[in-house]
Amino acid sequence: MTRLRFMTAGESHGPALTGILEGLPAGLHLEAADLDRDLARRQRGYGRGGRMKIEKDTAEILGGVRFGKTLGSPLALLVRNRDFENWRERMQAAPGGPDPKPVRVPRPGHADLTGGIKYGHTKDLRGVLERASARETAMRVALGAAARVLLRELGIGIGSYVRSIGPAEATPAHDAAPGLYREDAYELGLLADGFETRALDEASSRHLAEAIDEARRRRDTVGGVVEVVATGVPVGLGSHVHWDRRLDARLAGALSSIPAIKAVELGDGFAAAGLYGSEVHDPIHLSAGRLTRARNRAGGLEGGITNGEPLVVRAAMKPIATVPAALGSVDLHALEERSAHVERSDTCAVPAAGIVAEAMVALTLADALLEALGGDTMDALRLPFAKLRLSTRVE
Amino acid sequence: MTRLRFMTAGESHGPALTGILEGLPAGLHLEAADLDRDLARRQRGYGRGGRMKIEKDTAEILGGVRFGKTLGSPLALLVRNRDFENWRERMQAAPGGPDPKPVRVPRPGHADLTGGIKYGHTKDLRGVLERASARETAMRVALGAAARVLLRELGIGIGSYVRSIGPAEATPAHDAAPGLYREDAYELGLLADGFETRALDEASSRHLAEAIDEARRRRDTVGGVVEVVATGVPVGLGSHVHWDRRLDARLAGALSSIPAIKAVELGDGFAAAGLYGSEVHDPIHLSAGRLTRARNRAGGLEGGITNGEPLVVRAAMKPIATVPAALGSVDLHALEERSAHVERSDTCAVPAAGIVAEAMVALTLADALLEALGGDTMDALRLPFAKLRLSTRVE
Amino acid sequence: MTRLRFMTAGESHGPALTGILEGLPAGLHLEAADLDRDLARRQRGYGRGGRMKIEKDTAEILGGVRFGKTLGSPLALLVRNRDFENWRERMQAAPGGPDPKPVRVPRPGHADLTGGIKYGHTKDLRGVLERASARETAMRVALGAAARVLLRELGIGIGSYVRSIGPAEATPAHDAAPGLYREDAYELGLLADGFETRALDEASSRHLAEAIDEARRRRDTVGGVVEVVATGVPVGLGSHVHWDRRLDARLAGALSSIPAIKAVELGDGFAAAGLYGSEVHDPIHLSAGRLTRARNRAGGLEGGITNGEPLVVRAAMKPIATVPAALGSVDLHALEERSAHVERSDTCAVPAAGIVAEAMVALTLADALLEALGGDTMDALRLPFAKLRLSTRVE
Amino acid sequence: MTRLRFMTAGESHGPALTGILEGLPAGLHLEAADLDRDLARRQRGYGRGGRMKIEKDTAEILGGVRFGKTLGSPLALLVRNRDFENWRERMQAAPGGPDPKPVRVPRPGHADLTGGIKYGHTKDLRGVLERASARETAMRVALGAAARVLLRELGIGIGSYVRSIGPAEATPAHDAAPGLYREDAYELGLLADGFETRALDEASSRHLAEAIDEARRRRDTVGGVVEVVATGVPVGLGSHVHWDRRLDARLAGALSSIPAIKAVELGDGFAAAGLYGSEVHDPIHLSAGRLTRARNRAGGLEGGITNGEPLVVRAAMKPIATVPAALGSVDLHALEERSAHVERSDTCAVPAAGIVAEAMVALTLADALLEALGGDTMDALRLPFAKLRLSTRVE
Repeated sequence: MTRLRFMTAGESHGPALTGILEGLPAGLHLEAADLDRDLARRQRGYGRGGRMKIEKDTAEILGGVRFGKTLGSPLALLVRNRDFENWRERMQAAPGGPDPKPVRVPRPGHADLTGGIKYGHTKDLRGVLERASARETAMRVALGAAARVLLRELGIGIGSYVRSIGPAEATPAHDAAPGLYREDAYELGLLADGFETRALDEASSRHLAEAIDEARRRRDTVGGVVEVVATGVPVGLGSHVHWDRRLDARLAGALSSIPAIKAVELGDGFAAAGLYGSEVHDPIHLSAGRLTRARNRAGGLEGGITNGEPLVVRAAMKPIATVPAALGSVDLHALEERSAHVERSDTCAVPAAGIVAEAMVALTLADALLEALGGDTMDALRLPFAKLRLSTRVE
Repeated sequence: MTRLRFMTAGESHGPALTGILEGLPAGLHLEAADLDRDLARRQRGYGRGGRMKIEKDTAEILGGVRFGKTLGSPLALLVRNRDFENWRERMQAAPGGPDPKPVRVPRPGHADLTGGIKYGHTKDLRGVLERASARETAMRVALGAAARVLLRELGIGIGSYVRSIGPAEATPAHDAAPGLYREDAYELGLLADGFETRALDEASSRHLAEAIDEARRRRDTVGGVVEVVATGVPVGLGSHVHWDRRLDARLAGALSSIPAIKAVELGDGFAAAGLYGSEVHDPIHLSAGRLTRARNRAGGLEGGITNGEPLVVRAAMKPIATVPAALGSVDLHALEERSAHVERSDTCAVPAAGIVAEAMVALTLADALLEALGGDTMDALRLPFAKLRLSTRVE
Repeated sequence: MTRLRFMTAGESHGPALTGILEGLPAGLHLEAADLDRDLARRQRGYGRGGRMKIEKDTAEILGGVRFGKTLGSPLALLVRNRDFENWRERMQAAPGGPDPKPVRVPRPGHADLTGGIKYGHTKDLRGVLERASARETAMRVALGAAARVLLRELGIGIGSYVRSIGPAEATPAHDAAPGLYREDAYELGLLADGFETRALDEASSRHLAEAIDEARRRRDTVGGVVEVVATGVPVGLGSHVHWDRRLDARLAGALSSIPAIKAVELGDGFAAAGLYGSEVHDPIHLSAGRLTRARNRAGGLEGGITNGEPLVVRAAMKPIATVPAALGSVDLHALEERSAHVERSDTCAVPAAGIVAEAMVALTLADALLEALGGDTMDALRLPFAKLRLSTRVE
Repeated sequence: MTRLRFMTAGESHGPALTGILEGLPAGLHLEAADLDRDLARRQRGYGRGGRMKIEKDTAEILGGVRFGKTLGSPLALLVRNRDFENWRERMQAAPGGPDPKPVRVPRPGHADLTGGIKYGHTKDLRGVLERASARETAMRVALGAAARVLLRELGIGIGSYVRSIGPAEATPAHDAAPGLYREDAYELGLLADGFETRALDEASSRHLAEAIDEARRRRDTVGGVVEVVATGVPVGLGSHVHWDRRLDARLAGALSSIPAIKAVELGDGFAAAGLYGSEVHDPIHLSAGRLTRARNRAGGLEGGITNGEPLVVRAAMKPIATVPAALGSVDLHALEERSAHVERSDTCAVPAAGIVAEAMVALTLADALLEALGGDTMDALRLPFAKLRLSTRVE
C-alpha cells in the first residue's frame, strides 16, 4: 500500500494501541462512532473468552478529522487497553523489571519461539507475545473502518460471514442470501452480525456453535473459514502491468498478514484448479447495453484487475495457538520439556477474523481506488469514479 | 520487497523482456548459465503448445555482474523474444498501426476486458494481452534464479513439484520423497524435473498427463496445484511486529502475483481450519541440544516468522484462459456476442507455474534474509547467517 | 526510509501529536527522558513566542518499549498539546462547527493557500494550517531522539548549531570548537545548547540575538542557517548503486522535508561549485595504518556513501511565514485584498530547526545503517558495526 | 516515488544501460526520438572530453510503447555503450579476469574508496567506478524524457540553464529571458541549448567557457550551478500533510541523487535565510479574477505544495573527481601514497548536469501529478488536470 498507507503499534497489555492512516481524501464524513461500530463487531462472536468482556474497545480520533470530516491529513487513532492498570508494573515502558512471572515455555503455533529467538526475548517471551497477539488487529479494524466509510460513500459495500468452523460448514452466501451476495455486501455483513457465529442463518449458526462447544469441551481450540464480499466495485482496480500492482497479490498479502491465516482464496480458489477452463472462466454477455456475466467464479478479479462483479475472497484461519489443555513445548530456562504457557485466550476467533478481513480488504481496495483515480478530496473523486462505474456500458 | 527489489518490463511479442534486480550483495558467484537453467525448466512441462519450441529462452546479463561475480550494483537482464521478427510490424514501438488484425473479443478469465477498459485498449485488446501474458514470468524466473543462487550458497534449497492437475492428484512429497522434503528441496525440484508433468514419481506423472490429455481432447484447458518447499531456512526471517513484515503476507502476496493463481496455502492451509488446535500446532521438543519438531503442519512459519522447519507453500492455478474451443464473449466493436479471441496457447501450464513460484519464493526469502542480516557482500553475510542457523541450539 | 520508517500525525491545536517508528532493533536502552531531552531542546531558543511557554512537551511511550528497552516492535509516541482544552470546540473531531472564527486570508509563504485549494479548505484555512504548522516537527524530534540513542550507543554522535540568523553570521564550528567538530558532534550540540541562539560562542550568540531583536522591532520575522554534524560515522552507509540508495539524496530529502527549509548543502555545498577539483576533493593519506584525510570538504560523503569523516550538512530556513506586521493577501470569502491572517507565532525558529534537523539526520543515518548491517537486536548489530568501523584500517 | 517509479542498471563500460519506468498513463504519444533528443542534449556542452564523441547515445524502446503510444505497461529502455567492444574482456559478465589493469588508487571525491570498502572491491576499484560513473545518468535522462513528454502534453514545460561555472557567473533567467522564465521553461531550455555552455546569452557563455578553459589549462576540473525551471505547473502537487509527501523534500532528494551534486536550493534558497519575512514571502494579489503573485521568491513552492508560480530549483555541482593532474591518494595494494587513478573524463560536466536535473524534476513532478489525479490513461487525466489549472480562479 503506497497511495494509502498505515502503520500500527502497541502491545496487548500496554497502555494503548495506536495507528496512523495516511492518504485519505479530505471531506469524508467520519466519526468515532463509525470506527466503534466495527470495533464492537470484532469483539462479538461465539467462542470468545473473558477478555472481550473486560474491554469494550473504542477509538479516539487524535488527528486528521475536524467537525466530523477528514482534513486530508493523517488519521490518528488511539484504542486504550482497559486492562492496562492491572498490568502496569509488568508492562511499563519505564526501566524496571524483570517480570516476576516471565514466560519461558513457548506456545507452538505462535510467534513465541520464532520471535523470541529473532529479537532476543528468550528469557521472557512476553517481549514477543504482547505484540504478536491478535489484539493488534483491533487497530486494523478501526483504520479499516475509515476505508470502509470511504468506499461506502461511493457505493462499494464490504461484508463478511463465516463459512465454516472446524469440521462444521455453514450455508454459503449464494444460497443463504443470493441477493445481498450480488448487490449489497454491507448488508450481508450485517445479516451475519445477527448470529453469534456470524453464519447467515440460524441452522448454520447452531451447527457452527456446536463445533466451538465441542472444542471447548476438549479444552482445545478450533479454526475456520471466513468469506469477504465486496459489491459495487467498479472495473479497473489493480493492474496486470506489474507483479506488485496486481490486486490479487495485494489482497492475498493483506489477508495473509492477519495472524493465524494460513490460506487465501480469490473467487473459486482451489476449486478452479480442479476443473476445465470452460467450466471456470465466466463468459461475457451483452445485456441491456452492458457487458455482464451470468456467473462469478473469478470472484470479481481477472488479470489482477477488478471486473465489476462482486469481489469474493476467503481466508482460512488455523485454531488459536493458546490451547487450554496445553501443547508440548520446552522451558527455555530450565531446558526441559514442559507444557506450553497458557495466556488467557478464546476457543475460537473465526467470527472476529471476518471483521479483520473486511478491514484489510477495505484498506486494499481504497488504496487501489486512489491509485487509479487520485483524489485529494471526496469531491474530486466523485466524477472519475462515476465514469469508472459506467465503463461496462457499451454503445 | 524493499531491501531487495525488482521490476520487469516487456510485451509477449515485443523485442524482449527486461528486468532489474537491485539489492544483491556483492561477491555472489553468478553466471548466465545459472539463469538459463531455470529458464529451461520453466519451458519444459507436459501440456505446452508450440511456442515453447520456438523460443528457447536465454538471459543476457547487461549489468551487475563482472567476471562471474555480482558487483553489488543492480542486476540487469534481457531475455529476447525470438518470435519478434514475425511480429515486428504489429508490435513496433515506432508510430504505425493500426494492427490489421485487432483483438476485439475479450477472453473471459484474462485481463483482456478489465485491462482494456482500464487502459483504453478496447479497440485492440492486444494493448493489454501482450503484457498480461504469462510470458512475463520468464523474467521473474531469471531474476528469481539469482536469488536462488544466493540462498543456495548459504545452504537454503528451494524446489517445487506438481500436486495435482485438474481432478488428478499426485503423490505428495512427504510420501514420494520424504528425505528430500525435509532436507533438500533443491534436489526435490530436480527430481520433479525428471518427469514431464513435474510430479515426483512415474505413476503420478502418468496420471497427471492423462488429465492434460483429456483436456486437450476436449479442446479445453486445465489447472492444478503446485507446492514449493524451501529447506535449510533458518529461524527468524519475517516478523510479527508489523502487518507488512510478516513473511506469510509477503509469500502469499508474491505467489498470488503470478498470473492465474487463485489460492495460496501456507503449511497445512485450509486443512488447518478444519482441525483442533492440538492437532494443528507442532509441539516443540528438546532433542540433542536442539529445539526440534516432530511434524511441520505450520509449513515452517509461526507468527509470520520462519521457525527453522522446511517452508511449505502451495498455489492453485486456474486453467489457462485461452480455451481452444473458445468461450462466450462479446465483440467490442460489432457489439455482438461472439466466441472469444484465441491466442496461441497451451493446454496446461501448471508444471511451469511451479518454477515461477520457486522464483517468487526465492526473491521473497532473499529479501527477508537481507532485511534481517544486512549484507553488502556475501562475506559479510556469512557469519550472521551462521549464527542464525545455530539459534535453535540451546545452552 | 524503508528499513526504518516512521509516520506522524496530529494537528497543532488538536489533542495530541502521535508518531510510530518501525524497525528499531530490540534491546536498545530507551526511556521517555531520552525523548523529552530533545523535545526540551527544540522548545528553547531565542526568538520564540508565547506558545513555547504554554507547552512543555513530553513524550509518552505507548508501545515498543518495556522496562526501558526496545522490544523490536514499533515505537509508539504521544505528545499532548497542552493548549487543546482552549481549542476543543474549534478543533474537535466530532461533528460540529463551523468555526466561529474561520481563517480566510492565507499567509503568503505558508501552505494556507496551496493546501486550501488542494484539500478544499478555502472556507476555513485552519483545515490546512493546523497540520502544516511546524508543531508537527515536535514528533519528528521525539522519534529522531530514539534514532539518536541508537546511533550514540554505537559511538555515532549528532549535533547541530546555528551558523547565521538573517544577515548575522556566527563563528563556524571548525573555528569555534574544532575538536568537537571532528570528534564529538554530540558534545558540539550540547555546547550550542548553552547559548540561547544555539551559536557556539558568546560573541556570536549576541550577534545572532541582535538580528532577532531587530526583526522583532520591525514586527517581522527572520530565518537563518543551521549546520548538523555527525561524528563517529563509519565508512559504507548509503550507496552509489542506485539513485535512491545514495545517502546524499536521502539526507537532502529528509532535511528539505522540514517546514521552511529552502536549501540544503552537503559538505562544502555551493562553495564546491566555485572552486577547482584539486581544491575541492580531499586527498587520501596513509597514516598510522589508516586511510585518512587532512580535510573534509566532502562533508563525509563520497559517491553517495559515508567516507568515515564527519558528516556535515547545512539547511537554510526562510523566515517564519506568520509576519506580525502581516503580508498582503486576499480574503478568500470577501474576495478582496486584505492583510494575511496572523496566527500566534515566533520571530525566529532557527535554533529549533537545528534540533529538528538533527532528528532527520539521525533517522536517515539509522535507516542506512540497518539497511547495510541488518540488526534485529542491538547485540546482532555490534560485531558487524565494529568491523565497519575498522574498515579504513589497512595492513 | 511510488505512483510513478523507476529503476536503472548498467555499468559505464558494460554492454548497455537499461531502465524501467512504471506507472505512465496509457495513450501518451512517445517515440524514441523524444528520448534521443534529450540524450543528445546531455552529450553536448563545452568541457566534455573524448567519450562524448565516441558515443552518440540512442534509446531503444523494448517495452511499454506500441505504435507510438504508451500502453500503460512499464516503459523499458536500452542505451547501448558503443565502446563496449573495446572493453569486452575487461567487463564481461562471464567468469574470467582478473583485469590486467586493476584500479587500485582511489580518486578522492569519487565512490572509489567508499564503494570499494562497502562492496569489497578494494583489489580492483573498477567494480565500483563502473556503476558510480555519471554515465548512469544517461538512462535517467531517457526515462525523464518520457516524463517530460507527459508533462508537456498537459502544458507543463521544463527547462534548465547554467548559472555559473567555477567563479564565473552567467546572467540569470529573470534578466536574460524574463518572458520564458515565467511562461515557457521548455523554450528556456532550448535557448540554453543554443550556447555551448548552456548559458542564456553569448556574453555569459563566453565567460563560462573561459572558466572551463582555465580549468583545462590547469589540468584541473571545475563545477558550477544549474537552475531548473518548470512553467505551467498547477497548484496542488505535493502535500504538507506528511514529511515524505512534501514536494520540496522529493525535489531536493531527486536532485541530490545526481552524482556530484552537493547542494540544492528551492526558490531563493540560501538568500531567503538572510532576509526578513516581509521581504521573502510573496504577497497574494487579486487580479482579473485570479489569485496572483507579483514575485516568486518561493520558487513556486509553499508548504511543500506547488502554488501555480514557476517552479525554480538550483543544484550545485562540485568539480569532476577525476582530476587530470591527479590528486593525492593511496595505492590500496602497495599501501603507499600515490597519485589517484585517472579514468578518461571531462573538464566540466555542468551543462550536462542541467539536462539530468531536468529529468529528475520531470520524474518527480509527474509522480506528484499522478498521485494527486490518478490517471490510468491520458484521457482520464485531462479533465481533473484542467480543473486543477483553474483552481486559482476565484468566484
